[in-house]
Amino acid sequence: MFEYDPFASSEMRFFAARRRFLEGADTPAAYLDRCLRRIEECEPRIRAWVTLDLAQAREAAAASLQRYREGRTLSAIDGMPIGIKDLIDTCDMPTEMGCVAYAGHVPEHDAPAVWALRQAGAIILGKTVTAELGMNEPGPTVNPFNALHTPGGSSSGSAAAVGARMVPAALGTQVGGSIIRPSSYCANYALKPTLGALNRGPGLGLSQEVHGVHAGCPEDMWQVAAEIASRVGGDPGFPGLYGPLAPPSPRKPGRLIVMETPAWQRLDLGSKAAFEGFLRQCIGQGIEVLRRSDSELVESFEQAVKDMKVITDDINSYELFLALRIRHGGHPGKFSARLMNRMKKADAVTHDRYRLRLQQREDARRRFVGLAPLADAVITLSSLGPAPVWRRDRKDDASDPTPTGDSSFNVQASALGVPAVTIPMLAVGGLPLGIQLMGQSHEDARICSFASWISHHLRPVVVD
Amino acid sequence: MFEYDPFASSEMRFFAARRRFLEGADTPAAYLDRCLRRIEECEPRIRAWVTLDLAQAREAAAASLQRYREGRTLSAIDGMPIGIKDLIDTCDMPTEMGCVAYAGHVPEHDAPAVWALRQAGAIILGKTVTAELGMNEPGPTVNPFNALHTPGGSSSGSAAAVGARMVPAALGTQVGGSIIRPSSYCANYALKPTLGALNRGPGLGLSQEVHGVHAGCPEDMWQVAAEIASRVGGDPGFPGLYGPLAPPSPRKPGRLIVMETPAWQRLDLGSKAAFEGFLRQCIGQGIEVLRRSDSELVESFEQAVKDMKVITDDINSYELFLALRIRHGGHPGKFSARLMNRMKKADAVTHDRYRLRLQQREDARRRFVGLAPLADAVITLSSLGPAPVWRRDRKDDASDPTPTGDSSFNVQASALGVPAVTIPMLAVGGLPLGIQLMGQSHEDARICSFASWISHHLRPVVVD
Repeated sequence: MFEYDPFASSEMRFFAARRRFLEGADTPAAYLDRCLRRIEECEPRIRAWVTLDLAQAREAAAASLQRYREGRTLSAIDGMPIGIKDLIDTCDMPTEMGCVAYAGHVPEHDAPAVWALRQAGAIILGKTVTAELGMNEPGPTVNPFNALHTPGGSSSGSAAAVGARMVPAALGTQVGGSIIRPSSYCANYALKPTLGALNRGPGLGLSQEVHGVHAGCPEDMWQVAAEIASRVGGDPGFPGLYGPLAPPSPRKPGRLIVMETPAWQRLDLGSKAAFEGFLRQCIGQGIEVLRRSDSELVESFEQAVKDMKVITDDINSYELFLALRIRHGGHPGKFSARLMNRMKKADAVTHDRYRLRLQQREDARRRFVGLAPLADAVITLSSLGPAPVWRRDRKDDASDPTPTGDSSFNVQASALGVPAVTIPMLAVGGLPLGIQLMGQSHEDARICSFASWISHHLRPVVVD
Repeated sequence: MFEYDPFASSEMRFFAARRRFLEGADTPAAYLDRCLRRIEECEPRIRAWVTLDLAQAREAAAASLQRYREGRTLSAIDGMPIGIKDLIDTCDMPTEMGCVAYAGHVPEHDAPAVWALRQAGAIILGKTVTAELGMNEPGPTVNPFNALHTPGGSSSGSAAAVGARMVPAALGTQVGGSIIRPSSYCANYALKPTLGALNRGPGLGLSQEVHGVHAGCPEDMWQVAAEIASRVGGDPGFPGLYGPLAPPSPRKPGRLIVMETPAWQRLDLGSKAAFEGFLRQCIGQGIEVLRRSDSELVESFEQAVKDMKVITDDINSYELFLALRIRHGGHPGKFSARLMNRMKKADAVTHDRYRLRLQQREDARRRFVGLAPLADAVITLSSLGPAPVWRRDRKDDASDPTPTGDSSFNVQASALGVPAVTIPMLAVGGLPLGIQLMGQSHEDARICSFASWISHHLRPVVVD
């Protein structure tokens, strides 16, 4: 394992390497080799990958090199090795979704994002571990900074692979907290875009699901999202990702609203101290910080999202378990005990309860829009503290319902459908912890420009 | 072929047969036999079916009969033979979507609606012809009332099978006019529900697509929709079909708004006369009729939907052709010349043009909501006159872009996402023509209760 050093800058930044490709000082093949060496070194311990296709990757790197030589590259991510969460369809590698029912399953078509990445000349290096069907049953991946701790989930493998610098970027998906939380635990930058901003194709079809990007730096994070969107747009009926094709320039936020959530009460003292330290640094830089005690509107928003975890859980469970019943009937034995436990609870979510949850979600969305005039963005933690210890179930013991961590700081952006970005700015007890910015719908580029400014101008805060 | 007799009442009403099943005076097996005899008689000319699974149907009818005998039927449509548009996935029959690229394609899972019908004890008799990928390239089906005329499309086979009384009901899909128009041409009752009201599963994923029901009477139409919704709800993120499980009681509308659309100018005199005759009958029954000349709000709505055909065409083309590029790349040879022509036009729909169309669609939706306080429903024709002649292409001639008819009276409900029902109340030149009612979102049951009242209390209008 590595020590987590929040001050170390990544040698894996693809946008920097690409400049050297263009100058002839480096090549996509050499870059890929560095990734493969890192994988060879770390993967036996970290177990971030379900599938690796080295032969195809080497071929793609050679083709990319040829394009660089001939000055006809396909995009700014031509030659970028990338990992794809195994919940996202690939037509040339199995897509097992962390679920026995999909063992060996090879979809007929690529998901739109994967198709777009290939069109852009990126190298689809392999599939990364996902918790079962994007829910709570973990795969084998461990946290790159301490093997006793979870990497988070459900985008466990993508977060761990990026955190361990095996790849510069990876795709993830989020319906509750599946991109932002593991990225927080694994020191990734990550973007969970506005609902519908990246065309996700059929998949499991949950109403809160979005595809997003894990990366080692804000520039690569944006570039991957923008290259996908420019080729396949958003979900049908949605306007797709707004913003420039190149990474948005760093921009200092003028005012930030702090979102505490009801989980504030349960937050460990170290994480609280780190977050408050970070806010003091913001204030020191002339950024105004607005808290619930400063404004009735902020307090009222906190009230409006206080039940968001129950709302999100009910919505996701209803949708997933309906989809599973239609696809598989009951199928005992093909789902984990943890998933079956959750399915039992989901049975209580009637059509009318689901309708109520949708209305409550809609109410909260309207309330969030009301915050827009007050500040540039909302700031909060990306997870309820750093990655918790996960010692694996003993045989048939599925008593811990959320071994990949708590989504209390993630369900808001998921349910509101708004963009969220996490920035690895805190270290607590030797483990990473992310700072999360949330924007209004379609402000993806705006919060990414703030994230970029923060990463370049503020210093990580370390609490032992 | 049959003469079209708008006064003949259907002997195929399933809800009436079911009463006899319960009394022991008829059986699902005998009912199925009557359907099969009708199919044997008509199908060689009409060609409504792509696949028929008689063995499985007979087995399902026997199982249903057993349930009736034992008093443990699964639903009010237990034992109903039903046709499924071949654009809708079935795991035990090919789903070819009228497209060479999907020849022999058997999906892994049933679409939610099909799964729900099986759970309800309905008999999945087979797959019905669809125009290619739900667009304009027709299949072999002819109009049951005159083989020189189109049955309409894209739900050609479902409309023709119900019109010829081969089955009491069939599923269709609509993104532009694919349920209501063929139903108008083939004298079906049909419901295109509120957007998202019936869970449609992955499919091609177009933003305006809905599943709907073709039937021989309003009772069967509602019952099929309600049995599906009660089992699988709506699309993820949508509240699903509202309304009772049993067919809503007939209810007389108090006031109707006439929607003319810009196509009014192109409407033949016979259809106009029939529609005006029908309106006079409504007025004679004490129903108020509000027209664009009576109200600035109605006129303003007509203005708001006047470009709806272009808007709908751009939205559907952009979404479909993006999906096809991702699935198939260019694939020349696997799509018809007519589809390739349309694909060329779709290339001009940029991401920004698509965003604009979505905004225009949203504007029109808001304008339609503004009509709610003025009347109980909107009334218009279900198609631009009765079914036109379709003489088949000569070799390689795809010059007629819409051989299954004109969607000028259908794109409004499709784009607005509101429920529409068609009622076979007119006969023009010996062919059927439907009356269409449109309601506000989620008023599906309400417009069905009006449709039921109209079908029971008003007389068809015949114009030679």
